[in-house]
Parts: sequence; structure tokens; C-alpha cells
Amino acid sequence: MSKGELTRQRIIAEAAPIFNRRGYEGCSMQDILDATGLEKGGVYRHFGSKEELAVEAFRYALSNSMKMRTDNLENIHGAIEKLSHFVHRFVEVPSTVPGGCPLMNTAIDADDGNPVLRRLARDGIKDWKARLCRIVMDGIEGGEIRENVEPRRIANTLIATLEGALMISRIEGNRYALEDARTSLEILLRDIEVPEAKAQTPAWRG
Amino acid sequence: MSKGELTRQRIIAEAAPIFNRRGYEGCSMQDILDATGLEKGGVYRHFGSKEELAVEAFRYALSNSMKMRTDNLENIHGAIEKLSHFVHRFVEVPSTVPGGCPLMNTAIDADDGNPVLRRLARDGIKDWKARLCRIVMDGIEGGEIRENVEPRRIANTLIATLEGALMISRIEGNRYALEDARTSLEILLRDIEVPEAKAQTPAWRG
Repeated sequence: MSKGELTRQRIIAEAAPIFNRRGYEGCSMQDILDATGLEKGGVYRHFGSKEELAVEAFRYALSNSMKMRTDNLENIHGAIEKLSHFVHRFVEVPSTVPGGCPLMNTAIDADDGNPVLRRLARDGIKDWKARLCRIVMDGIEGGEIRENVEPRRIANTLIATLEGALMISRIEGNRYALEDARTSLEILLRDIEVPEAKAQTPAWRG
Repeated sequence: MSKGELTRQRIIAEAAPIFNRRGYEGCSMQDILDATGLEKGGVYRHFGSKEELAVEAFRYALSNSMKMRTDNLENIHGAIEKLSHFVHRFVEVPSTVPGGCPLMNTAIDADDGNPVLRRLARDGIKDWKARLCRIVMDGIEGGEIRENVEPRRIANTLIATLEGALMISRIEGNRYALEDARTSLEILLRDIEVPEAKAQTPAWRG
């Protein structure tokens, strides 16, 4: 990586928590200059505008938080176990970029605001939902999840409940909402499971 | 109401959707002047600062949205029916103040931002949760909801799931997430109900 590329990456990494905490409008280029210790020209050499930097900062924060949330998922056996592990990770592992979930922050910040960030947030939700839907569909095909379960409903409910709980937990300054969300989502996951699946598993394996 | 008080109320009503859409940092006093058609002195006669106006605008937006969401709740019979009606209202009735839920917007906006707004958002969540907890407790006392159900979990889950779903629906520009949230919450409400309660109701009434 060239020295220029290293500087670019450093600016992104240092801008990401500022945008994530303060939002697009609440973060000025001066805040970025203060955080990086660079001159104006040093930042504008790498980013044509505040929007361009905000986009890269959001991509960086989102990719970090998705990596944390889906880490090791492919090694978990079974759809219900995968979904349960995903809930567990969300509840237990804080984001590496301070300021809460970058996807929710940007979605709320940009729903009536910056259109480029809004599109990125929408794409982020879409990708996340597609991943969860795929797990549910695999579970249906594998006979583990009931056939009449709508994958989209499960994906929407998991994301909505966890993001909403994170919002409550952050504003309350405690973890109750996240833990309550986990308990409720575990009940929902038991509801979509084929009743025989769990009981029969040892027989199939045997 | 005096002419001065009327002007003050009009400023609050016109500022509320601007703050709700753009957030505290994203809304300037100039935006308020443009919306109200008033001179700077005309606004500052009623509000000492942007923060003071933002606080009143948030209170106004929150009180409107809570009224919409809990309208007619006291006339609904039974705890499960009350909770179900509340979910239904949230999903079906849009906020009267444009820009999404003022409570979630302010919670996300202020969790690393303005401390006065953060406290108001925390109080708003607290009041809302207390109301839902009360309904669950009444349901437990009345033998309608299982005794081992934690009221806090139900309040947190309802608010988290609905607010998260509203966030997804707004960024996607469709209603799927809200409708999926309703389906999942109805399943959770059935889960907390005493199984005999429903079946026995006609007998008790008879």
C-alpha cells in the first residue's frame, strides 16, 4: 500500500466514528481535520467532498460491523442455530466503530437527508436481509423450518427487533432491551422450527 | 390564547417536522425563519436558543405521535387485545408529524449528541415502556397473561420491533417490514397468553 493510500485509509478510519456519532450534517470538515491532524489540502487530496468522505466512512463502518455480526456464521450447523448465533453476536459484541449501528444511524439520518447515503443504507439493509433470508430458505429446504414460514418476515423481524433494541439500550445506557430482544427472538425461532426436527435429529444422525 | 402564545405555538408546530426530518444539527435557525416567514427577532422573542425551540418541537412531536399510537386504548377490553390494538395502530397510522418517529429520530440523533434532547428521548421511552408494562401486569393479575412473563421484556420487544420496522420501512419505501413486525408480534402475544384464558372466556362470561 502506497503512503498516499495509507493516509486515505487512515482518514476513513478516523472519520468513520465521527460520522457515525454525529451524523452527516452534524460532522464538519473541521471535525475531520481536528481528528486527523491534517491540513484541508491533505484531506481534499483524497476526497473531493465531504459527501465522498462520508460515503467511504459509512462503507468502512458498515463492513466492520457486518463482519463482527456474521463472524463464524458459516461454521455453525443448522439454520436455527445460525440465526440464533447471529442474534447472540448482535447482542453480545459491540460495534468496532463507536456510536451505535452505522446502518441504523445512517438510515435514520438519511431517510429525509443525503440521497447517496440513503441509497447505501438501503443497499446495506437489502444485503443483510438477503443473507438472513437465504439461511431461512436453507432451513425450509432442509426440513428444519416450517414450509409456510415467510423468510422475509424472519429477516425483517430479526433486524428490526435487534436494531430497535440497540436504540433503546443506547439511550437507556443499559443492556436490558438487547437481552429482552434476544429472549423474544429465541421464542420466535422456536415457533418457526418444525416440531419433529429437533427430536428426530439424533435418529437421522444415528 | 394571546396573540403571542398563538405565534409561539405556530413556531413550534412548524419547527417540529423540520427537526424531526433533519435532526438537531441538520436544522438551522435559518430553516425555521424560512418555514415560519418570521424575522430572527420574532423567533428569539419566544425561544432563547435553538436548543429551547428544539426541546419544545420534540415535546410537541412526541405528544402528537403518542396520542395517535395510544388513541382509544383505554376502551379496549383485555390486556392482549390492548397490546394487539397498540401494534395495529403503530403499523397502520402514520405519525402526524412528518419524518418518522420523533422518539427514534431523537434517540438516534442525540445518543451521542445534545444532552437535553437525549434526556427527553430517554424519558419518552421510559413513559412508553411504563404504559405497556402496566397493561402486561394487568393481564397477569387478571389471569390472561402467564405469570412468569416479564412485563419489561414485552414492553422492550414491542417498542424495539416496531421502531426498527419503521426504520426499515422508511428506508425501503414500502410497508413490508411493518407488516412483518405485526405478524411476529402477534405470535409473541399468543405465546404470553394463558392457554385456557381464551377458551374459558365464554364460560366466565356466560
